[in-house]
Amino acid sequence: MINQNNDSTILTLNEQLLLDQISTLGNIGHEGSNKGRTRIALSDDEKLGRDQIVSWMKELDLDIQIDPIGNIFGTLNSNNQENQPLMMGSHIDTVKNAGALDGCYGVLSGLAVIRAFKDAQMLPSRPITVVAFTNEEGVRYQPDMMGSLVYAKGLELKTALATVGTDGTILKDELERIEYYGTFDSSKLIPFKYLELHIEQGPVLDSDKKEIGVVENLQGISWQKITIEGKANHAGTTPTRLRHDAGLAASLINVFVRDIALTTGTTLATIGALELEPNVINVIPNKVTFSLDIRDPNEQKLLDAEEKVKEYLRKLEIQEKVKISSQSLARFKPVQFDEKLASDIQESCDKLGFSNQRITSGAGHDAQMISRIAPSAMIFVPSRDGISHNPKEYTPDEQLIKGAKILLDVVLKHTK
Amino acid sequence: MINQNNDSTILTLNEQLLLDQISTLGNIGHEGSNKGRTRIALSDDEKLGRDQIVSWMKELDLDIQIDPIGNIFGTLNSNNQENQPLMMGSHIDTVKNAGALDGCYGVLSGLAVIRAFKDAQMLPSRPITVVAFTNEEGVRYQPDMMGSLVYAKGLELKTALATVGTDGTILKDELERIEYYGTFDSSKLIPFKYLELHIEQGPVLDSDKKEIGVVENLQGISWQKITIEGKANHAGTTPTRLRHDAGLAASLINVFVRDIALTTGTTLATIGALELEPNVINVIPNKVTFSLDIRDPNEQKLLDAEEKVKEYLRKLEIQEKVKISSQSLARFKPVQFDEKLASDIQESCDKLGFSNQRITSGAGHDAQMISRIAPSAMIFVPSRDGISHNPKEYTPDEQLIKGAKILLDVVLKHTK
Repeated sequence: MINQNNDSTILTLNEQLLLDQISTLGNIGHEGSNKGRTRIALSDDEKLGRDQIVSWMKELDLDIQIDPIGNIFGTLNSNNQENQPLMMGSHIDTVKNAGALDGCYGVLSGLAVIRAFKDAQMLPSRPITVVAFTNEEGVRYQPDMMGSLVYAKGLELKTALATVGTDGTILKDELERIEYYGTFDSSKLIPFKYLELHIEQGPVLDSDKKEIGVVENLQGISWQKITIEGKANHAGTTPTRLRHDAGLAASLINVFVRDIALTTGTTLATIGALELEPNVINVIPNKVTFSLDIRDPNEQKLLDAEEKVKEYLRKLEIQEKVKISSQSLARFKPVQFDEKLASDIQESCDKLGFSNQRITSGAGHDAQMISRIAPSAMIFVPSRDGISHNPKEYTPDEQLIKGAKILLDVVLKHTK
Repeated sequence: MINQNNDSTILTLNEQLLLDQISTLGNIGHEGSNKGRTRIALSDDEKLGRDQIVSWMKELDLDIQIDPIGNIFGTLNSNNQENQPLMMGSHIDTVKNAGALDGCYGVLSGLAVIRAFKDAQMLPSRPITVVAFTNEEGVRYQPDMMGSLVYAKGLELKTALATVGTDGTILKDELERIEYYGTFDSSKLIPFKYLELHIEQGPVLDSDKKEIGVVENLQGISWQKITIEGKANHAGTTPTRLRHDAGLAASLINVFVRDIALTTGTTLATIGALELEPNVINVIPNKVTFSLDIRDPNEQKLLDAEEKVKEYLRKLEIQEKVKISSQSLARFKPVQFDEKLASDIQESCDKLGFSNQRITSGAGHDAQMISRIAPSAMIFVPSRDGISHNPKEYTPDEQLIKGAKILLDVVLKHTK
């Protein structure tokens, strides 16, 4: 049994309901135990997820607002409506074949914190808002973290709405289709502070056996789309020296960026998506399009890696007789979170007796966007074996509850 | 103007009709000048191509027979029906975005040769058969050269019919669907000799400025399907040393086989088709499936390359912490064509004054299968820049006619 009370706060989480909601939301778009769930942003299944969140916000009598990029804001009002709200949030879209926790855990814990206020019939000293940001994952529409980026004025709404998806759809059309193209002017809702509770999605807390990660900063991210054009030719008759093999050039790049990662020790490099053309067994590939994801907590090292790749692409064009073009899909500098808010999180951990450590976020999160407009910080709970973006993503229920308790405690500190 | 007569033969080719038929067949499945035509074996468009061939065979009053693997035989009868037929043929299926000549040129030149007999009202001394073999390209169903392989008893009909395509379809179902699951027992039709006229699909004749290639042998071919299983994990949080990146392992293999090709100088190695899973920008690929095409004119060198790859896969399993399995899709030893028939071809070239040279076929062809059951040889014409399996595949009309004239001359020699 999970303990339903904790003496160190004056409010009580409905722990079982939080776990039940994580499970209910996780069943939307579920494709079987081996495949997890898939709720790509603005798909039919993600609409069902949104409808479920809105329905739970209604049960809590929240003021629900949808802005034109589809971000969903649910606000618990205060006696001091003129005060800026304390905001908690994350996202509910997923990658393909995802776990149930990435993003959803933060949104649903936000609702659980508000429920604790409602259950205690306690009015906060400032409004408390829970937000579910649109398209954090960036699977179909780039850049990722789009909803929070638009909200934080880092990307023009008009540009974001015109984004063409990997399936050729236009983002605004899909927002309208699923009925989440809202009219709320969210620029009027600037938070006092922003808190995001999330699973780590990496192996650090699990291997260090720590219960809570106090996230003090976040890696820089560089996403590129690289296109290589070679020449389609018969695989059996074209001498090696006369080939223009686009697929081989992509392989060489993959090996090259792995070497950068091994050399620096801090840089991460991944080719996650790749399409060959014509993709036929006995034809030398004439075209390849692939994504390159590079990250580093240090901006200079990230710049260095980008520059090395750029030089290598130029070299490869000559060596492999191919044409290479690259396009930036997303570029975010490393982010430093608000030190005061991080200290608050750490204090709450110490007060509640949860083991904790300072940590760098390897993944991108909506909090990095919101940190442009408000003091922000994040709370991490461990991911077993560091696995995420995978049906096997797992955090024990006890750990999920501990994370939500820290969130409640920090919120309470700022809204008593 | 193309010369409609040639004094060195007693029969005359209808050259313009041959060129027109190449063009007409090339328009079936055509997708625009940049995309060429796509008539994957047993697709709707390939059925249209088959119907066209059958209709042209009917115009020539040929005996038309379809066997259960869908090979189409059209026979011009002789006064000596007990004689084994002289057979000419190739295929009319294509790769994706193909040129108009690969395969089609050989089948249509066969019809042109028979037309020359009909036009001269000359009965050959033995039947003459033109054949269009099923699924030479092996795009959707492996192995390639399937129709001729089954015909030559190198693959059981039952096994071939049960082949599951890359799209999940079963070959027999598709044969029935397009109405080319025939009942003719083709084992009763063993040719006296087999001739295949084909474009080179390689750069040798073009760069050596020779009009005709006398094909004396053919490279060995090894096709494998390789599957690598790693672990899907977040691209931003998983340290390099903890990754199980299936896509990176595939890249390393591509670079490794390129090194084999560069080292031996005769081996060709190609990764032409590749699929990543989940194929998402910020997820480390947990699975990759790809084709590996290795060729060498020397069987021992081909065996060596296969062994090196096998060892490397074992090494990679440990180094990259992935699971690798491989499956042979096709394996053909190098083939030596019939020396007497090759000499006949060379004699015809010398007689007609066409420059020529002995050549090794880099590509696989139906002739290599038929060489198991009858003396076989091939005639090549140049491919501009060696380009094939590409909309830019091109051979000048004059060269196409010269090739057909050699075919006619050699056929005549054996059927006068």
